[in-house]
Amino acid sequence: MSKLPVRLLCGPGPSDVAPSVLEVLSRPILGHLDPAFLALAEEVKTMLRTVFQTANETTFAVSGTGSAGMECALVNVIEPGDDVVVGVAGLFGLRLAEIARRCGGAVRTIEVEFGKPIPVERLIQALPAKVLAVVHAETSTGMRQSLEGLGDACRETGTLLVVDAVTSLGGIPLSVDEAGIDVCYSGTQKCLSVPPGLAPITFSDAALEGVRRRGTPVRSWYLDVGLLTQYWGEERTYHHTAPTGMIAALHEGLRLVLDEGLEARWQRHQTLGGELQIALAEMGFRFLAEAGHRLPQLSATFLPDKIGDERVKRRRLLDDFGIEVGAGFGPLSGKGWRIGLMGESCRPDKLARLVDGIRAVVS
Amino acid sequence: MSKLPVRLLCGPGPSDVAPSVLEVLSRPILGHLDPAFLALAEEVKTMLRTVFQTANETTFAVSGTGSAGMECALVNVIEPGDDVVVGVAGLFGLRLAEIARRCGGAVRTIEVEFGKPIPVERLIQALPAKVLAVVHAETSTGMRQSLEGLGDACRETGTLLVVDAVTSLGGIPLSVDEAGIDVCYSGTQKCLSVPPGLAPITFSDAALEGVRRRGTPVRSWYLDVGLLTQYWGEERTYHHTAPTGMIAALHEGLRLVLDEGLEARWQRHQTLGGELQIALAEMGFRFLAEAGHRLPQLSATFLPDKIGDERVKRRRLLDDFGIEVGAGFGPLSGKGWRIGLMGESCRPDKLARLVDGIRAVVS
Repeated sequence: MSKLPVRLLCGPGPSDVAPSVLEVLSRPILGHLDPAFLALAEEVKTMLRTVFQTANETTFAVSGTGSAGMECALVNVIEPGDDVVVGVAGLFGLRLAEIARRCGGAVRTIEVEFGKPIPVERLIQALPAKVLAVVHAETSTGMRQSLEGLGDACRETGTLLVVDAVTSLGGIPLSVDEAGIDVCYSGTQKCLSVPPGLAPITFSDAALEGVRRRGTPVRSWYLDVGLLTQYWGEERTYHHTAPTGMIAALHEGLRLVLDEGLEARWQRHQTLGGELQIALAEMGFRFLAEAGHRLPQLSATFLPDKIGDERVKRRRLLDDFGIEVGAGFGPLSGKGWRIGLMGESCRPDKLARLVDGIRAVVS
Repeated sequence: MSKLPVRLLCGPGPSDVAPSVLEVLSRPILGHLDPAFLALAEEVKTMLRTVFQTANETTFAVSGTGSAGMECALVNVIEPGDDVVVGVAGLFGLRLAEIARRCGGAVRTIEVEFGKPIPVERLIQALPAKVLAVVHAETSTGMRQSLEGLGDACRETGTLLVVDAVTSLGGIPLSVDEAGIDVCYSGTQKCLSVPPGLAPITFSDAALEGVRRRGTPVRSWYLDVGLLTQYWGEERTYHHTAPTGMIAALHEGLRLVLDEGLEARWQRHQTLGGELQIALAEMGFRFLAEAGHRLPQLSATFLPDKIGDERVKRRRLLDDFGIEVGAGFGPLSGKGWRIGLMGESCRPDKLARLVDGIRAVVS
C-alpha cells in the first residue's frame, strides 16, 4: 500500500493512537481460544472494570464500534412493548431513541434544545419505566449531561439506567457503580485512544436479571449478552471469532490509561481542553454547549463571524497542516466545527499545534 | 505488554496474518471521513467486487466479525412472518436458522447428517420462499456445499438466495453473480488472512429492492444496509465510526489476494489442502465430510484410534510446537480436530511444519 498521510486527529473521533498500541497491532495475532489470548482477555475485563469503576462481573468488549455497544445495551434490556424513556439533547440521544424503537420499545423522549443539558428532574419525573437511557457526553453538541440522582431514582422506581459513555470514558469522571448505572458502554477510539472497532460494555446484576426474565429472545444473536458472556465468562464457549488483534490493542490502551491513573487522565483532559476553549474563544469561536456544561474533550463550536465556507477552512487545516477537525451537526451544520482533544491527541504539544493551525486558517 | 507467544494458526480461523498486513496495522490511523481514507475505502469496495466476482454496487465491509455479516444479511432481507428456508448441515447452518428466527422469520430447515452435503434438489423442492440461506463451506464439518442450480431456482421462484462464504471466500471458487447469489458475506480472518473484525458483504439489486419494500424497519440499526450504504456510497453520511485501521488492513489483504490472482490462490488451497489430507489419512485420521465434498482449506477429522484425550494432544501441539488446531464440534466433539490451512497459513513450509508437529504428537 502506498503511504497514507499522517494526521493529527482532533475531530469527534477517532483520536490519535498511542505508538505502543500500534506496536501491539503489528504483532502476529493469536487464536480466540488460545490460552494465552484468554488470559489477556481476562486482564482486559479486569482493567475495564477499573476504568468503568464497577464491580460488575459482566464487563467486556463488544466486537463492533461504539454504536454496536449502544445497540447491544438496548437490544438486551428492551422487549417489544417496553416503556422506554430517552433523553434527547443531540444526535446520539436521537440515535438511542431510534434504536430503542427498532428493539420494539414504546419510546418517550425528553427533549431539550441542542446544546443544553437535560434537567435531571425532567428525566426523573418521567419514571417509572422499563429503561431510562441518556448520553453522558453528547458528541454532537459538546454537552456534559449530569447523571446526579438518576441512579437513585431508577433504583426506587425499578427502572434500568442505560448510559452512553462513548465520548466520556477515560476523559471525564464517571463511576458506573456510584452513579447507579445498569448498562454502560463506550468506544475504543475516543478518550481511550485505541483504533475504532470495539465497544467496552458493562451490565449490572439487575440488568442481567432482566435479560434472564425476558419473555422473548433477544432480537440480535450477535449482541445477545447471554451468549456473549458464555464466551467472555468462565465457560469460554465459542460464540463468534473474537477480534483478537484489536483486543490485544485494547489491552495495551487500557494499560496506558491505568499507568497514567484515571484521576490524572481526567485532569489532563480538563486542563488542556480548558486551554483550548480559552484559545478558541479568543479567536472568536462560540460554543454550542451552555457554559458550565461543556465537555473539555470535545468542543462544538460556531466559527468566528465572516470566516466564509467552513468546508474550505476545514480542508485547508487538513491539507496544509495535517490536522483533522470534525464538521458540525444540527445547529452547527455548515457553521461550525467539532474539535476533539481526546486521549493521545490531548497532549500539550499537539494542543499548541492545533491552536496554531486553527489560528492560521481562520485569521 | 509482555510478549505473547507466536503461533502457527491452523485452526478453523483465524489464520496467520501476512507481514505486510501487520505493517499496515502499525501505521497511524486516519479519520473515517478523511478524503484519503474514503479513497482507500472505495478501493476496498472495488477489490471486494473482484474477490466476490460480482458487479454489485453495494459491496462493502460490515464493522463486525463474520457472524455480524451473517446477521446483517438476514436482518435486512427477513421481515417478521417471512417464509425462510435454511439448509442445515452443521453449526453454521444451525446459526443461520437461529438468527433467521430472531429476525422474525418462519423458518423451515432442510437438514442432513453432519458431514454430508445437502442435496440441492431438496433445497429447490422447498421453494418458493422469501429467502433461501445456505452455507457454502461448513466450517464445523469441513463440507463443501454445492450451489449448482440454486440461483436459477431462486430467480424462477422469486426467492432471495443468501450464501455464507465465511470460510470459502478466497479459498475455493465462488462467483456471486454466476451463482445467482443475492446476499453473500464472509469474514476477514479465514482465507483472506486479515485479522478478525470485519465482514465483507455484497447485496444484489433484487435484495436491495426487497429491503426498500419492507413494511417494517430493519430490526438492527447497526446493520441496516440502507443506512450503511449512505456511508459506504457516494453520500458519505456519517453512520458509525468505521474501523479505519482494520479497513486499511483489509485493503492490504485484498491487494495480496489480487496480486496472487484468485485462480492461483484457489489452486494453492486445493493443492496444499489435498497434500495435508493425504498425510492425515496416512496417519490414521478419518474425515467427517463425505469424500468428494471435502473442503481443502478446512479438514474436520477424527483422530486415529487409541490416541487418548484429544485435548492433551492438542495442547501439546500448541505448547511444544506452537501450532494451533481447533477442537471438533458435534460428532467430532472430544474425538477430533478441525485443521485449517487457510490464506497465509497455507504455505508449503507451514504445511510441512504442521504435518511434522501432528505426526509427533499422535505417534
